[in-house]
Amino acid sequence: MTTKESEGEHIVKSYEQDLARLKGLLTQMGGMVEAQAANAARAVLEHNATAAGYAVQDDVAVDALEREITDFAIRLLALRQPVASDLRLIVSSIKIAGDLERIGDYAANVAKRSLVLNEISSPFSMSGIGNMCRLVQENLKTTVDAIGESNPDRAVEVWRSDIMIDDVYSAIFREQITYMMEDPRNITPCTHLLFMAKNLERMGDHATNIAETIYYAISGQNMPTDRPKGESSFSTSRQAGA
Amino acid sequence: MTTKESEGEHIVKSYEQDLARLKGLLTQMGGMVEAQAANAARAVLEHNATAAGYAVQDDVAVDALEREITDFAIRLLALRQPVASDLRLIVSSIKIAGDLERIGDYAANVAKRSLVLNEISSPFSMSGIGNMCRLVQENLKTTVDAIGESNPDRAVEVWRSDIMIDDVYSAIFREQITYMMEDPRNITPCTHLLFMAKNLERMGDHATNIAETIYYAISGQNMPTDRPKGESSFSTSRQAGA
Repeated sequence: MTTKESEGEHIVKSYEQDLARLKGLLTQMGGMVEAQAANAARAVLEHNATAAGYAVQDDVAVDALEREITDFAIRLLALRQPVASDLRLIVSSIKIAGDLERIGDYAANVAKRSLVLNEISSPFSMSGIGNMCRLVQENLKTTVDAIGESNPDRAVEVWRSDIMIDDVYSAIFREQITYMMEDPRNITPCTHLLFMAKNLERMGDHATNIAETIYYAISGQNMPTDRPKGESSFSTSRQAGA
Repeated sequence: MTTKESEGEHIVKSYEQDLARLKGLLTQMGGMVEAQAANAARAVLEHNATAAGYAVQDDVAVDALEREITDFAIRLLALRQPVASDLRLIVSSIKIAGDLERIGDYAANVAKRSLVLNEISSPFSMSGIGNMCRLVQENLKTTVDAIGESNPDRAVEVWRSDIMIDDVYSAIFREQITYMMEDPRNITPCTHLLFMAKNLERMGDHATNIAETIYYAISGQNMPTDRPKGESSFSTSRQAGA
Protein backbone atom coordinates (compact mmCIF):
# COMPACT_ATOMS: atom_id res chain seq x y z
CA MET A 1 0.00 0.00 0.00
CA THR A 2 1.12 3.59 -0.64
CA THR A 3 2.49 5.88 2.05
CA LYS A 4 -0.67 7.98 1.73
CA GLU A 5 -2.91 4.99 2.54
CA SER A 6 -0.86 3.94 5.57
CA GLU A 7 -0.79 7.56 6.70
CA GLY A 8 -4.58 7.76 6.35
CA GLU A 9 -4.94 4.55 8.32
CA HIS A 10 -2.62 5.88 10.98
CA ILE A 11 -4.70 9.05 11.38
CA VAL A 12 -7.95 7.07 11.62
CA LYS A 13 -6.36 4.69 14.14
CA SER A 14 -5.15 7.48 16.42
CA TYR A 15 -8.56 9.18 16.09
CA GLU A 16 -10.22 6.00 17.31
CA GLN A 17 -7.68 5.90 20.11
CA ASP A 18 -8.62 9.48 21.04
CA LEU A 19 -12.33 8.61 21.18
CA ALA A 20 -11.53 5.51 23.25
CA ARG A 21 -9.43 7.65 25.59
CA LEU A 22 -12.29 10.14 25.99
CA LYS A 23 -14.69 7.35 26.87
CA GLY A 24 -12.04 5.90 29.20
CA LEU A 25 -11.71 9.22 31.03
CA LEU A 26 -15.51 9.40 31.41
CA THR A 27 -15.80 5.89 32.84
CA GLN A 28 -12.81 6.61 35.10
CA MET A 29 -14.56 9.74 36.39
CA GLY A 30 -17.77 7.72 36.74
CA GLY A 31 -15.91 5.14 38.82
CA MET A 32 -14.46 7.84 41.08
CA VAL A 33 -17.90 9.36 41.63
CA GLU A 34 -19.31 5.87 42.33
CA ALA A 35 -16.60 5.49 44.99
CA GLN A 36 -17.54 8.88 46.46
CA ALA A 37 -21.19 7.79 46.64
CA ALA A 38 -20.20 4.46 48.24
CA ASN A 39 -18.05 6.26 50.83
CA ALA A 40 -20.83 8.75 51.52
CA ALA A 41 -23.22 5.84 52.09
CA ARG A 42 -20.70 4.15 54.42
CA ALA A 43 -20.23 7.45 56.26
CA VAL A 44 -23.97 7.77 56.82
CA LEU A 45 -24.93 4.16 57.58
CA GLU A 46 -21.83 3.01 59.49
CA HIS A 47 -21.07 6.43 61.09
CA ASN A 48 -17.70 5.97 59.39
CA ALA A 49 -15.77 9.26 59.59
CA THR A 50 -12.85 7.85 57.57
CA ALA A 51 -15.18 7.01 54.67
CA ALA A 52 -16.66 10.51 54.96
CA GLY A 53 -13.14 11.92 54.71
CA TYR A 54 -12.50 9.93 51.51
CA ALA A 55 -15.74 11.12 49.91
CA VAL A 56 -14.77 14.74 50.63
CA GLN A 57 -11.11 14.42 49.60
CA ASP A 58 -11.95 12.72 46.28
CA ASP A 59 -13.89 15.80 45.21
CA VAL A 60 -10.63 17.54 44.27
CA ALA A 61 -9.53 14.74 41.93
CA VAL A 62 -13.03 14.53 40.42
CA ASP A 63 -13.02 18.27 39.69
CA ALA A 64 -9.58 17.97 38.09
CA LEU A 65 -10.79 15.08 35.92
CA GLU A 66 -13.77 17.14 34.75
CA ARG A 67 -11.37 19.86 33.57
CA GLU A 68 -9.18 17.25 31.86
CA ILE A 69 -12.17 15.78 30.01
CA THR A 70 -13.43 19.20 28.91
CA ASP A 71 -9.98 20.27 27.69
CA PHE A 72 -9.42 16.97 25.87
CA ALA A 73 -12.87 17.14 24.24
CA ILE A 74 -12.23 20.69 23.05
CA ARG A 75 -8.83 19.65 21.69
CA LEU A 76 -10.51 16.75 19.84
CA LEU A 77 -13.11 19.09 18.36
CA ALA A 78 -10.35 21.38 17.12
CA LEU A 79 -7.96 18.71 15.80
CA ARG A 80 -10.37 16.04 14.49
CA GLN A 81 -13.28 18.22 13.37
CA PRO A 82 -15.66 15.32 13.98
CA VAL A 83 -19.15 15.05 12.54
CA ALA A 84 -22.38 13.14 13.27
CA SER A 85 -22.22 10.64 16.12
CA ASP A 86 -18.56 11.31 16.97
CA LEU A 87 -19.35 14.99 17.29
CA ARG A 88 -22.35 14.23 19.51
CA LEU A 89 -20.24 11.90 21.66
CA ILE A 90 -17.48 14.48 22.16
CA VAL A 91 -19.88 17.31 22.96
CA SER A 92 -21.94 15.06 25.23
CA SER A 93 -18.85 14.01 27.16
CA ILE A 94 -18.48 17.62 28.33
CA LYS A 95 -22.08 17.62 29.63
CA ILE A 96 -21.68 14.19 31.24
CA ALA A 97 -18.48 15.24 33.02
CA GLY A 98 -20.33 18.29 34.36
CA ASP A 99 -23.15 16.15 35.77
CA LEU A 100 -20.72 13.63 37.26
CA GLU A 101 -18.91 16.52 38.98
CA ARG A 102 -22.19 17.66 40.55
CA ILE A 103 -22.97 14.12 41.71
CA GLY A 104 -19.57 13.92 43.40
CA ASP A 105 -20.24 17.31 44.96
CA TYR A 106 -23.52 16.10 46.48
CA ALA A 107 -21.88 12.88 47.67
CA ALA A 108 -19.22 14.95 49.46
CA ASN A 109 -21.96 17.06 51.01
CA VAL A 110 -23.84 13.97 52.23
CA ALA A 111 -20.58 12.77 53.80
CA LYS A 112 -20.08 16.14 55.53
CA ARG A 113 -23.60 16.08 56.92
CA SER A 114 -22.99 12.57 58.30
CA LEU A 115 -20.14 13.99 60.40
CA VAL A 116 -22.46 16.66 61.82
CA LEU A 117 -25.13 14.02 62.54
CA ASN A 118 -22.54 11.97 64.44
CA GLU A 119 -21.67 15.02 66.55
CA ILE A 120 -25.28 15.65 67.54
CA SER A 121 -25.91 11.88 67.80
CA SER A 122 -29.21 11.68 65.94
CA PRO A 123 -31.61 9.08 67.41
CA PHE A 124 -33.30 8.31 64.07
CA SER A 125 -33.30 5.15 62.00
CA MET A 126 -31.31 5.66 58.79
CA SER A 127 -33.15 2.88 56.96
CA GLY A 128 -34.91 5.31 54.59
CA ILE A 129 -31.69 7.16 53.79
CA GLY A 130 -29.92 3.80 53.45
CA ASN A 131 -32.57 2.71 50.96
CA MET A 132 -32.02 5.92 48.99
CA CYS A 133 -28.23 5.48 49.09
CA ARG A 134 -28.65 1.98 47.65
CA LEU A 135 -30.98 3.13 44.85
CA VAL A 136 -28.73 6.06 43.95
CA GLN A 137 -25.64 3.82 43.90
CA GLU A 138 -27.43 1.31 41.65
CA ASN A 139 -28.54 4.11 39.33
CA LEU A 140 -25.05 5.53 39.25
CA LYS A 141 -23.61 2.12 38.39
CA THR A 142 -26.12 1.67 35.56
CA THR A 143 -25.26 5.17 34.35
CA VAL A 144 -21.52 4.46 34.27
CA ASP A 145 -22.25 1.15 32.50
CA ALA A 146 -24.41 3.01 29.96
CA ILE A 147 -21.42 5.31 29.30
CA GLY A 148 -18.98 2.40 28.95
CA GLU A 149 -21.29 0.31 26.78
CA SER A 150 -22.82 3.28 24.88
CA ASN A 151 -26.08 1.55 25.71
CA PRO A 152 -29.32 3.54 25.26
CA ASP A 153 -31.42 0.84 26.98
CA ARG A 154 -29.33 1.23 30.12
CA ALA A 155 -29.92 4.97 29.86
CA VAL A 156 -33.70 4.43 29.77
CA GLU A 157 -33.31 2.11 32.80
CA VAL A 158 -31.65 4.94 34.75
CA TRP A 159 -34.45 7.29 33.76
CA ARG A 160 -37.11 4.81 34.97
CA SER A 161 -35.58 4.03 38.36
CA ASP A 162 -35.16 7.73 39.15
CA ILE A 163 -38.92 7.78 39.81
CA MET A 164 -38.37 5.26 42.63
CA ILE A 165 -35.71 7.49 44.16
CA ASP A 166 -38.13 10.43 44.11
CA ASP A 167 -40.79 8.33 45.84
CA VAL A 168 -38.46 7.18 48.63
CA TYR A 169 -37.39 10.79 49.01
CA SER A 170 -40.99 11.95 49.45
CA ALA A 171 -41.61 9.21 52.06
CA ILE A 172 -38.48 10.25 54.00
CA PHE A 173 -39.59 13.84 53.79
CA ARG A 174 -43.00 13.15 55.33
CA GLU A 175 -41.36 11.00 58.01
CA GLN A 176 -38.92 13.73 59.02
CA ILE A 177 -41.65 16.35 59.18
CA THR A 178 -43.59 14.08 61.55
CA TYR A 179 -40.58 13.66 63.84
CA MET A 180 -40.09 17.42 63.87
CA MET A 181 -43.73 17.92 64.80
CA GLU A 182 -43.41 15.41 67.64
CA ASP A 183 -40.48 17.10 69.38
CA PRO A 184 -38.66 20.37 68.61
CA ARG A 185 -35.37 18.75 69.66
CA ASN A 186 -35.71 16.60 66.53
CA ILE A 187 -35.71 19.62 64.24
CA THR A 188 -31.94 20.01 63.84
CA PRO A 189 -31.13 16.33 63.17
CA CYS A 190 -34.24 15.94 61.00
CA THR A 191 -33.28 18.97 58.94
CA HIS A 192 -29.87 17.40 58.32
CA LEU A 193 -31.54 14.15 57.26
CA LEU A 194 -33.94 16.12 55.09
CA PHE A 195 -31.13 17.90 53.24
CA MET A 196 -29.18 14.67 53.05
CA ALA A 197 -32.16 13.01 51.36
CA LYS A 198 -32.51 16.04 49.07
CA ASN A 199 -28.85 15.69 48.05
CA LEU A 200 -29.35 12.00 47.27
CA GLU A 201 -32.46 12.89 45.26
CA ARG A 202 -30.34 15.37 43.28
CA MET A 203 -27.66 12.77 42.65
CA GLY A 204 -30.40 10.69 41.02
CA ASP A 205 -31.54 13.78 39.12
CA HIS A 206 -28.06 14.31 37.63
CA ALA A 207 -27.76 10.60 36.80
CA THR A 208 -30.99 11.11 34.84
CA ASN A 209 -29.40 14.09 33.04
CA ILE A 210 -26.50 11.84 32.07
CA ALA A 211 -28.88 9.11 30.89
CA GLU A 212 -30.65 11.65 28.65
CA THR A 213 -27.32 12.91 27.31
CA ILE A 214 -26.11 9.36 26.55
CA TYR A 215 -29.39 8.54 24.82
CA TYR A 216 -29.02 11.65 22.68
CA ALA A 217 -25.34 11.03 21.94
CA ILE A 218 -26.03 7.49 20.73
CA SER A 219 -29.35 7.98 18.93
CA GLY A 220 -29.26 11.66 17.95
CA GLN A 221 -32.80 11.81 19.41
CA ASN A 222 -34.06 13.17 22.72
CA MET A 223 -35.30 10.48 25.10
CA PRO A 224 -38.94 9.84 24.07
CA THR A 225 -40.28 10.32 27.59
CA ASP A 226 -40.40 13.48 29.67
CA ARG A 227 -37.78 13.47 32.36
CA PRO A 228 -38.98 12.91 35.94
CA LYS A 229 -37.26 16.03 37.29
CA GLY A 230 -37.22 16.33 41.07
CA GLU A 231 -37.40 20.09 41.05
CA SER A 232 -39.88 20.55 38.25
CA SER A 233 -42.22 17.67 39.11
CA PHE A 234 -43.14 19.49 42.31
CA SER A 235 -46.78 19.22 43.30
CA THR A 236 -48.52 20.30 46.47
CA SER A 237 -49.48 16.70 47.16
CA ARG A 238 -45.79 15.83 47.36
CA GLN A 239 -45.39 18.50 50.06
CA ALA A 240 -42.50 20.86 50.52
CA GLY A 241 -39.85 18.28 49.85
CA ALA A 242 -40.63 17.58 46.24
CA MET B 1 -11.64 41.56 -6.45
CA THR B 2 -11.85 37.96 -7.63
CA THR B 3 -14.87 35.75 -7.17
CA LYS B 4 -12.81 33.60 -4.82
CA GLU B 5 -12.07 36.56 -2.55
CA SER B 6 -15.70 37.67 -2.39
CA GLU B 7 -16.73 34.09 -1.78
CA GLY B 8 -14.20 33.86 1.07
CA GLU B 9 -15.54 37.10 2.50
CA HIS B 10 -19.07 35.78 2.21
CA ILE B 11 -18.21 32.63 4.15
CA VAL B 12 -16.44 34.62 6.89
CA LYS B 13 -19.40 37.01 7.07
CA SER B 14 -21.99 34.27 7.50
CA TYR B 15 -19.75 32.58 10.07
CA GLU B 16 -19.70 35.79 12.09
CA GLN B 17 -23.47 35.94 11.69
CA ASP B 18 -23.71 32.39 13.06
CA LEU B 19 -21.63 33.29 16.12
CA ALA B 20 -23.72 36.42 16.63
CA ARG B 21 -26.90 34.33 16.36
CA LEU B 22 -25.56 31.85 18.96
CA LYS B 23 -24.81 34.70 21.36
CA GLY B 24 -28.22 36.17 20.56
CA LEU B 25 -29.95 32.89 21.46
CA LEU B 26 -28.01 32.75 24.75
CA THR B 27 -28.95 36.29 25.76
CA GLN B 28 -32.54 35.60 24.68
CA MET B 29 -32.59 32.52 26.92
CA GLY B 30 -30.96 34.56 29.67
CA GLY B 31 -33.71 37.17 29.35
CA MET B 32 -36.42 34.51 29.57
CA VAL B 33 -34.85 33.03 32.70
CA GLU B 34 -34.54 36.54 34.19
CA ALA B 35 -38.28 36.97 33.56
CA GLN B 36 -38.95 33.61 35.26
CA ALA B 37 -36.93 34.73 38.29
CA ALA B 38 -38.77 38.08 38.35
CA ASN B 39 -42.16 36.33 38.20
CA ALA B 40 -41.10 33.87 40.90
CA ALA B 41 -40.11 36.82 43.10
CA ARG B 42 -43.45 38.53 42.41
CA ALA B 43 -45.25 35.27 43.18
CA VAL B 44 -43.50 34.99 46.53
CA LEU B 45 -43.50 38.61 47.69
CA GLU B 46 -46.87 39.77 46.31
CA HIS B 47 -48.65 36.41 46.69
CA ASN B 48 -49.25 36.78 42.97
CA ALA B 49 -50.59 33.49 41.58
CA THR B 50 -50.66 34.83 38.01
CA ALA B 51 -46.95 35.63 38.15
CA ALA B 52 -46.35 32.15 39.59
CA GLY B 53 -48.24 30.71 36.63
CA TYR B 54 -46.02 32.62 34.18
CA ALA B 55 -42.81 31.42 35.89
CA VAL B 56 -44.02 27.81 35.61
CA GLN B 57 -45.35 28.08 32.02
CA ASP B 58 -42.17 29.71 30.71
CA ASP B 59 -40.18 26.63 31.72
CA VAL B 60 -41.37 24.84 28.56
CA ALA B 61 -40.11 27.59 26.23
CA VAL B 62 -36.81 27.79 28.15
CA ASP B 63 -36.27 24.03 27.81
CA ALA B 64 -37.00 24.26 24.07
CA LEU B 65 -34.50 27.13 23.71
CA GLU B 66 -31.83 25.07 25.47
CA ARG B 67 -32.31 22.31 22.90
CA GLU B 68 -32.22 24.87 20.06
CA ILE B 69 -28.93 26.32 21.35
CA THR B 70 -27.35 22.89 21.79
CA ASP B 71 -28.41 21.76 18.30
CA PHE B 72 -27.24 25.01 16.71
CA ALA B 73 -23.89 24.84 18.54
CA ILE B 74 -23.35 21.26 17.39
CA ARG B 75 -24.25 22.23 13.82
CA LEU B 76 -21.74 25.11 14.02
CA LEU B 77 -19.03 22.75 15.30
CA ALA B 78 -19.68 20.43 12.37
CA LEU B 79 -19.98 23.04 9.62
CA ARG B 80 -17.50 25.70 10.74
CA GLN B 81 -14.89 23.55 12.44
CA PRO B 82 -13.94 26.46 14.69
CA VAL B 83 -10.71 26.74 16.67
CA ALA B 84 -9.36 28.69 19.64
CA SER B 85 -11.74 31.25 21.16
CA ASP B 86 -14.61 30.57 18.72
CA LEU B 87 -14.43 26.90 19.62
CA ARG B 88 -14.44 27.73 23.34
CA LEU B 89 -17.39 30.09 22.85
CA ILE B 90 -19.46 27.50 20.98
CA VAL B 91 -18.72 24.69 23.44
CA SER B 92 -19.31 27.03 26.39
CA SER B 93 -22.68 28.08 25.01
CA ILE B 94 -23.88 24.48 25.49
CA LYS B 95 -22.79 24.56 29.15
CA ILE B 96 -24.28 28.01 29.71
CA ALA B 97 -27.63 26.98 28.20
CA GLY B 98 -27.65 23.97 30.56
CA ASP B 99 -27.09 26.17 33.62
CA LEU B 100 -29.70 28.69 32.47
CA GLU B 101 -32.19 25.83 32.10
CA ARG B 102 -31.55 24.75 35.70
CA ILE B 103 -31.96 28.33 36.95
CA GLY B 104 -35.33 28.52 35.18
CA ASP B 105 -36.24 25.18 36.71
CA TYR B 106 -35.51 26.44 40.24
CA ALA B 107 -37.41 29.67 39.56
CA ALA B 108 -40.46 27.63 38.49
CA ASN B 109 -40.11 25.56 41.67
CA VAL B 110 -39.96 28.69 43.84
CA ALA B 111 -43.13 29.90 42.12
CA LYS B 112 -44.86 26.56 42.79
CA ARG B 113 -43.91 26.70 46.46
CA SER B 114 -45.33 30.22 46.70
CA LEU B 115 -48.72 28.82 45.67
CA VAL B 116 -48.54 26.21 48.44
CA LEU B 117 -47.53 28.86 50.96
CA ASN B 118 -50.55 30.96 49.97
CA GLU B 119 -52.82 27.94 50.55
CA ILE B 120 -51.50 27.35 54.07
CA SER B 121 -51.28 31.13 54.65
CA SER B 122 -47.83 31.32 56.23
CA PRO B 123 -47.56 33.96 58.98
CA PHE B 124 -43.87 34.65 58.34
CA SER B 125 -42.16 37.78 57.05
CA MET B 126 -40.74 37.19 53.58
CA SER B 127 -38.13 39.95 53.93
CA GLY B 128 -35.21 37.50 53.99
CA ILE B 129 -36.50 35.60 50.96
CA GLY B 130 -37.24 38.94 49.28
CA ASN B 131 -33.66 39.99 49.90
CA MET B 132 -32.41 36.75 48.37
CA CYS B 133 -34.72 37.16 45.36
CA ARG B 134 -33.27 40.64 44.78
CA LEU B 135 -29.65 39.44 45.05
CA VAL B 136 -30.29 36.46 42.75
CA GLN B 137 -32.05 38.67 40.18
CA GLU B 138 -29.15 41.17 40.24
CA ASN B 139 -26.66 38.34 39.83
CA LEU B 140 -28.66 36.86 36.99
CA LYS B 141 -28.78 40.24 35.26
CA THR B 142 -25.01 40.66 35.60
CA THR B 143 -24.58 37.12 34.27
CA VAL B 144 -26.70 37.80 31.20
CA ASP B 145 -24.83 41.09 30.66
CA ALA B 146 -21.53 39.19 30.94
CA ILE B 147 -22.77 36.85 28.20
CA GLY B 148 -23.91 39.72 25.96
CA GLU B 149 -20.77 41.79 26.50
CA SER B 150 -18.36 38.80 26.67
CA ASN B 151 -17.08 40.58 29.76
CA PRO B 152 -14.82 38.61 32.14
CA ASP B 153 -14.94 41.37 34.79
CA ARG B 154 -18.71 41.02 34.98
CA ALA B 155 -18.20 37.28 35.37
CA VAL B 156 -15.90 37.84 38.36
CA GLU B 157 -18.54 40.24 39.79
CA VAL B 158 -21.12 37.42 39.66
CA TRP B 159 -18.72 35.07 41.37
CA ARG B 160 -18.09 37.62 44.18
CA SER B 161 -21.71 38.43 44.92
CA ASP B 162 -22.65 34.75 45.14
CA ILE B 163 -20.96 34.74 48.56
CA MET B 164 -23.53 37.31 49.75
CA ILE B 165 -26.36 35.09 48.53
CA ASP B 166 -24.92 32.17 50.50
CA ASP B 167 -24.72 34.35 53.64
CA VAL B 168 -28.33 35.53 53.39
CA TYR B 169 -29.32 31.90 52.83
CA SER B 170 -27.55 30.80 56.02
CA ALA B 171 -29.28 33.58 57.99
CA ILE B 172 -32.70 32.57 56.64
CA PHE B 173 -31.93 28.96 57.47
CA ARG B 174 -31.13 29.74 61.13
CA GLU B 175 -34.24 31.94 61.35
CA GLN B 176 -36.54 29.20 60.02
CA ILE B 177 -35.08 26.59 62.37
CA THR B 178 -35.80 28.95 65.31
CA TYR B 179 -39.44 29.38 64.22
CA MET B 180 -39.82 25.61 63.90
CA MET B 181 -38.42 25.16 67.41
CA GLU B 182 -40.86 27.73 68.77
CA ASP B 183 -44.01 26.07 67.46
CA PRO B 184 -44.51 22.76 65.60
CA ARG B 185 -47.28 24.38 63.54
CA ASN B 186 -44.53 26.45 61.91
CA ILE B 187 -42.72 23.38 60.62
CA THR B 188 -44.61 22.97 57.35
CA PRO B 189 -44.51 26.63 56.24
CA CYS B 190 -40.92 27.01 57.46
CA THR B 191 -39.87 23.92 55.51
CA HIS B 192 -41.36 25.45 52.36
CA LEU B 193 -39.48 28.70 53.02
CA LEU B 194 -36.34 26.69 53.72
CA PHE B 195 -36.52 24.84 50.40
CA MET B 196 -37.48 28.05 48.64
CA ALA B 197 -34.34 29.70 50.02
CA LYS B 198 -32.31 26.65 49.01
CA ASN B 199 -33.64 26.93 45.44
CA LEU B 200 -32.68 30.61 45.32
CA GLU B 201 -29.22 29.72 46.66
CA ARG B 202 -28.90 27.17 43.85
CA MET B 203 -29.96 29.72 41.25
CA GLY B 204 -26.99 31.80 42.45
CA ASP B 205 -24.82 28.68 42.31
CA HIS B 206 -25.67 28.08 38.65
CA ALA B 207 -25.14 31.78 37.84
CA THR B 208 -21.65 31.25 39.30
CA ASN B 209 -21.18 28.22 37.01
CA ILE B 210 -22.08 30.42 34.05
CA ALA B 211 -19.69 33.15 35.21
CA GLU B 212 -16.88 30.58 35.37
CA THR B 213 -17.77 29.26 31.91
CA ILE B 214 -17.85 32.78 30.42
CA TYR B 215 -14.50 33.59 32.02
CA TYR B 216 -13.03 30.43 30.53
CA ALA B 217 -14.60 31.00 27.11
CA ILE B 218 -13.17 34.52 26.88
CA SER B 219 -9.76 34.04 28.48
CA GLY B 220 -9.06 30.35 27.94
CA GLN B 221 -8.16 30.25 31.65
CA ASN B 222 -10.09 28.98 34.64
CA MET B 223 -11.24 31.73 36.99
CA PRO B 224 -8.25 32.42 39.27
CA THR B 225 -10.26 32.02 42.47
CA ASP B 226 -11.90 28.91 43.90
CA ARG B 227 -15.61 28.93 43.36
CA PRO B 228 -17.77 29.56 46.44
CA LYS B 229 -19.92 26.47 45.93
CA GLY B 230 -22.98 26.24 48.16
CA GLU B 231 -22.88 22.47 48.34
CA SER B 232 -19.15 21.97 48.71
CA SER B 233 -18.46 24.86 51.10
CA PHE B 234 -20.53 23.10 53.76
CA SER B 235 -19.24 23.43 57.30
CA THR B 236 -20.84 22.49 60.60
CA SER B 237 -20.78 26.15 61.64
CA ARG B 238 -23.08 26.92 58.72
CA GLN B 239 -25.55 24.34 60.04
CA ALA B 240 -27.63 21.94 58.04
CA GLY B 241 -28.59 24.49 55.43
CA ALA B 242 -25.22 24.98 53.89
